[in-house]
Amino acid sequence: VFSYERPVRLEDVDAAQIVFFPRILGYAHEAVATLMEELDGGYAGLLMKRRIGLPTVHLEVDFTAPLRFGDVARVELTVTRIGERSCAFRAKLTRVHDGAKVATILYVCAITDLETLRAIAIPEDVRRILGAHAVIA
Amino acid sequence: VFSYERPVRLEDVDAAQIVFFPRILGYAHEAVATLMEELDGGYAGLLMKRRIGLPTVHLEVDFTAPLRFGDVARVELTVTRIGERSCAFRAKLTRVHDGAKVATILYVCAITDLETLRAIAIPEDVRRILGAHAVIA
Amino acid sequence: VFSYERPVRLEDVDAAQIVFFPRILGYAHEAVATLMEELDGGYAGLLMKRRIGLPTVHLEVDFTAPLRFGDVARVELTVTRIGERSCAFRAKLTRVHDGAKVATILYVCAITDLETLRAIAIPEDVRRILGAHAVIA
Amino acid sequence: VFSYERPVRLEDVDAAQIVFFPRILGYAHEAVATLMEELDGGYAGLLMKRRIGLPTVHLEVDFTAPLRFGDVARVELTVTRIGERSCAFRAKLTRVHDGAKVATILYVCAITDLETLRAIAIPEDVRRILGAHAVIA
Repeated sequence: VFSYERPVRLEDVDAAQIVFFPRILGYAHEAVATLMEELDGGYAGLLMKRRIGLPTVHLEVDFTAPLRFGDVARVELTVTRIGERSCAFRAKLTRVHDGAKVATILYVCAITDLETLRAIAIPEDVRRILGAHAVIA
Repeated sequence: VFSYERPVRLEDVDAAQIVFFPRILGYAHEAVATLMEELDGGYAGLLMKRRIGLPTVHLEVDFTAPLRFGDVARVELTVTRIGERSCAFRAKLTRVHDGAKVATILYVCAITDLETLRAIAIPEDVRRILGAHAVIA
Repeated sequence: VFSYERPVRLEDVDAAQIVFFPRILGYAHEAVATLMEELDGGYAGLLMKRRIGLPTVHLEVDFTAPLRFGDVARVELTVTRIGERSCAFRAKLTRVHDGAKVATILYVCAITDLETLRAIAIPEDVRRILGAHAVIA
Repeated sequence: VFSYERPVRLEDVDAAQIVFFPRILGYAHEAVATLMEELDGGYAGLLMKRRIGLPTVHLEVDFTAPLRFGDVARVELTVTRIGERSCAFRAKLTRVHDGAKVATILYVCAITDLETLRAIAIPEDVRRILGAHAVIA
């Protein structure tokens, strides 16, 4: 399990005083991005130099408790599937101070050539990092 | 069907030069928020005066084509379920210039007292607006 | 004067329940971007095809009243200087419902080749649009 | 000098492939927010429990070099004035990898009762933290 923590910032909450739900998906993506920093050249190297990205193609999310300003979110990320050209992550978000379950996210990415926007075979180094965090049923 | 259009802004795209996926969910939410403007007092009145919100509790999304800077997104919103304390929306996003299907979002909200964060019965006026846009199988 | 209006969205306010100040600068930029839509090919054509941008090089801002969820912001934009390679805008933001002055922004942009990130002479078509909105003391 | 570092995230850059300028002000605000964590109860306690905020009332910014995805920004924050009801910060932003000067921000806040939105005398504990980071000419 790859674990990532980040505080809620005052601009992440909305007029309902809870974190705006698309930002919760942003927190999960930060965890994926941080995982990709393990690549030689980092995530920026993958996107900007090699022009390979991981656009999201499918999402399933259950939101079970809100996050508020002052909370810290913990994202626990596992790789649940590594396919030919795509992979799936599960992200479990909790609140650090009381352990409440905030959201469960299933998140499928296509490994994509950013020039053509077509899916490509997962490069070996990306596959290695995914494999290191895989918990495949 | 409630229809809502909005241009992609330059800050909506990310380093991969496509709209960052959580922002696509933000576009769908803008459509819901615009629908709620039909309430007496608007969406702001619901949230700020009556302290009633519609936090998202469940999401299922398929992303099928990217949005880029220069594109205009069209959101077609229908209400697919009106329950006691929750409702479901389907949002179909397309690109205006070529009609390409960008995303299909199933989106479940709980009508919630923002003070206690507990689900409450859907108020009559909210129910009326939801009903006016319902396409229930 | 080029006039642009936009409602405050629920995600624009922060934990203090007022619009987060960098977003106010975003509203002003939306007005500039909308002005640039008058170009043949639009603002997207300028940035993406011609690879010319208008990065901000200097800002002076006075914030005089808050914006809240439910408010509509009006931006009144004038071009106050058109130089060789740069131009200046003044954006006055008000709240539509009561006319309160929200912010005054002086905003200097360098017309920039986005490949080299060097300032370039303002292209004729951009100069024409700037000139049409100029109020130069 | 209070020093704060944060990586540019892929969603911070815009269609021009450089960090969207209002986000640079957001980075500076993150440094101020992090400084305020030194308060008993943190920044969230100040805003949410004591209902005291620091809305920005004046900004002067020079942008001198862009930030790109892959860069890390360093914010060096000093308090340059502590008044009765307001204070001023200077934030110098640099790129970590090459030390290039990205922006210099002068930033004036009013200490504000968030219920009445009126400026109030700076509380003693806030004054103490500001004093600890003051470099007053």
